[in-house]
Amino acid sequence: MTARIFVTRKKGVLDPQGQAVARALGRLGFDEVKDARIGKFIEVTLDGDRAQAGARVEKMCKDLLANMVIEEYRFELVD
Amino acid sequence: MTARIFVTRKKGVLDPQGQAVARALGRLGFDEVKDARIGKFIEVTLDGDRAQAGARVEKMCKDLLANMVIEEYRFELVD
Repeated sequence: MTARIFVTRKKGVLDPQGQAVARALGRLGFDEVKDARIGKFIEVTLDGDRAQAGARVEKMCKDLLANMVIEEYRFELVD
Repeated sequence: MTARIFVTRKKGVLDPQGQAVARALGRLGFDEVKDARIGKFIEVTLDGDRAQAGARVEKMCKDLLANMVIEEYRFELVD
């Protein structure tokens, strides 16, 4: 089973890397770009029971993968 | 409109950051973790015509967001 985890900055938290990307896209002629935000995409391959996987992945995010002060996460489980 | 872009390393390209995360999860007691791979998740807010947005986002990925030598991308457009 695979957990696809998305870690992004919370709304309201500055994202300088995203701002740099938005500016760079503008300079490259992509005038339609209004904003960009950058996060992490983590694919974790897991053994074991699907029923418990959700709670385990939740704990992985809180313990290691996301900084809960400035980031939030969401995930999906895929077979 | 928002483009959600996922940039990941191509299969077969080493991912040391992912390996470090997999090992760290193992040390924290998540023995069910077999592998982890880390990519970027980029949300770009766009103006303009949806019909052309796909081709434009494709070009953004190739020109700036992904390193096509070692990375691949996929994206979805959301209203």
